[in-house]
Amino acid sequence: MMMKSIRMAGFALVLSAASYAEGQEAWLPSLITQTPQEGFELAVTLARRGVSTTQPDRDVLGAGRPIYSHDPDSLIAASQVIAIHFGTIAAANDYWRDRADEE
Amino acid sequence: MMMKSIRMAGFALVLSAASYAEGQEAWLPSLITQTPQEGFELAVTLARRGVSTTQPDRDVLGAGRPIYSHDPDSLIAASQVIAIHFGTIAAANDYWRDRADEE
Amino acid sequence: MMMKSIRMAGFALVLSAASYAEGQEAWLPSLITQTPQEGFELAVTLARRGVSTTQPDRDVLGAGRPIYSHDPDSLIAASQVIAIHFGTIAAANDYWRDRADEE
Amino acid sequence: MMMKSIRMAGFALVLSAASYAEGQEAWLPSLITQTPQEGFELAVTLARRGVSTTQPDRDVLGAGRPIYSHDPDSLIAASQVIAIHFGTIAAANDYWRDRADEE
Amino acid sequence: MMMKSIRMAGFALVLSAASYAEGQEAWLPSLITQTPQEGFELAVTLARRGVSTTQPDRDVLGAGRPIYSHDPDSLIAASQVIAIHFGTIAAANDYWRDRADEE
Amino acid sequence: MMMKSIRMAGFALVLSAASYAEGQEAWLPSLITQTPQEGFELAVTLARRGVSTTQPDRDVLGAGRPIYSHDPDSLIAASQVIAIHFGTIAAANDYWRDRADEE
Repeated sequence: MMMKSIRMAGFALVLSAASYAEGQEAWLPSLITQTPQEGFELAVTLARRGVSTTQPDRDVLGAGRPIYSHDPDSLIAASQVIAIHFGTIAAANDYWRDRADEE
Repeated sequence: MMMKSIRMAGFALVLSAASYAEGQEAWLPSLITQTPQEGFELAVTLARRGVSTTQPDRDVLGAGRPIYSHDPDSLIAASQVIAIHFGTIAAANDYWRDRADEE
Repeated sequence: MMMKSIRMAGFALVLSAASYAEGQEAWLPSLITQTPQEGFELAVTLARRGVSTTQPDRDVLGAGRPIYSHDPDSLIAASQVIAIHFGTIAAANDYWRDRADEE
Repeated sequence: MMMKSIRMAGFALVLSAASYAEGQEAWLPSLITQTPQEGFELAVTLARRGVSTTQPDRDVLGAGRPIYSHDPDSLIAASQVIAIHFGTIAAANDYWRDRADEE
Repeated sequence: MMMKSIRMAGFALVLSAASYAEGQEAWLPSLITQTPQEGFELAVTLARRGVSTTQPDRDVLGAGRPIYSHDPDSLIAASQVIAIHFGTIAAANDYWRDRADEE
Repeated sequence: MMMKSIRMAGFALVLSAASYAEGQEAWLPSLITQTPQEGFELAVTLARRGVSTTQPDRDVLGAGRPIYSHDPDSLIAASQVIAIHFGTIAAANDYWRDRADEE
């Protein structure tokens, strides 16, 4: 259920104003996902959350408008944060090893 | 209890002057948290503490006024520090695996 | 099967428009690979996916044309993201230890 | 005992001239600390030692005067080095799990 | 055998045109090495491969001529990628612990 | 014995011309050290080796004269590479836990 909403959350670097307003609510109940791909999407969510946590001012973030970086270096740096979180999530899910044969 | 105060600590990059003055007291009694989300918030706290430890001069830090970075690259870099700490905290909590079914 | 398509995916920093359009489909069913080399190629795929996830606007990404960076620092940074993902994938495959004697 | 002196060492980015002169002596007998907070302080010490090891010229380092960076990016980078060392120290102490209930 | 060729591969940041042309062949059959030093050399190989994978255009890479960076920061960044790969390879080899007494 | 020579190797960012000339010889027989401090010194050695491996041209490196960086950011970046290697070496030595009580 939670994973579903994450998968539909779009791809902006920061969360939308709406999802930020919901920031006080529970947004990370578990690190366990059904598939590696959902784990990757959760890693993207955590990377975004780290950005919006540091700069919660919506005016600076563009009143909820996503910051789409055009700088390749920024994109690579964001990819690195995702990679670190994905490593954590993969370990949490024991690397989805029990699912390796199913697919 | 401790987690609660962390959750209400706001989102500035550095601790407020008040919390810095309390810096000599115990501020990190444990890495164990109830939920992954509290673990993420603790990771944010550790990232901030690393910044204020390196530059404790309150005048430079703006006399306690939070340094809100407007540079996307800085925000991504801060997100990366959070990611590293979150990996440590997640391991400390055995990835909250025993809570995965509760939610 | 999946590994094969990854191996033929070419070497651009971002996925082609075609593969991005397929982005809603399953693209990461497993972290398990037959060899370390396939694991490295999967790490490259994850690094690219992290870039295209952050900036999905095809116009910015050049309408699918790969972003070939000419900046050595960018290339090293991309290599670092690959290294982090490779560490995760290697752990998932128990470092392909059971294959060490075969070759 | 060692931990005590570390805790009083102040917060400069590099060690003072005095402590550097003592650099030939034993300064890291153990990674084990009593609390996570002492572990964090030890991580700060290791991050500083990495800086002063690379540039031991006291004239460049300001004859022992601490280099207080005013650049937010430098502060975040220093926080990242601390985060990496803290991960190592936390693992060494098995994340202080046996102390989680005491506090 | 493979390790030998790696040890003689020289020290350029990217693979030569010749070795790149061989890129479709198996180049990473195993992460297991005889010594920590060979493991370090393999880490250098993986770091280079990450660079040449991202930018396979031989014209950009100088038609196989190695990119020797003169920028200290680039050299340190490259050293960091090597460090990450070395950590993976060291774990794969169980840190060569069983060889510690032999030498 | 090896550790001793490492401890006396000085603190330059890159190896001296002399030690580089010895680069073809065995320089890393083991990751096991007697103390955490020797482990840290070995991490410094590995960080330097990563730099000199990427740029072996002695003329660029100053004919063996150490590159002392005056840029705080470079010093912090070098400290980060050391931190990554120290994490690997600490794990190899099981964090020197069996020595924690001796000192």
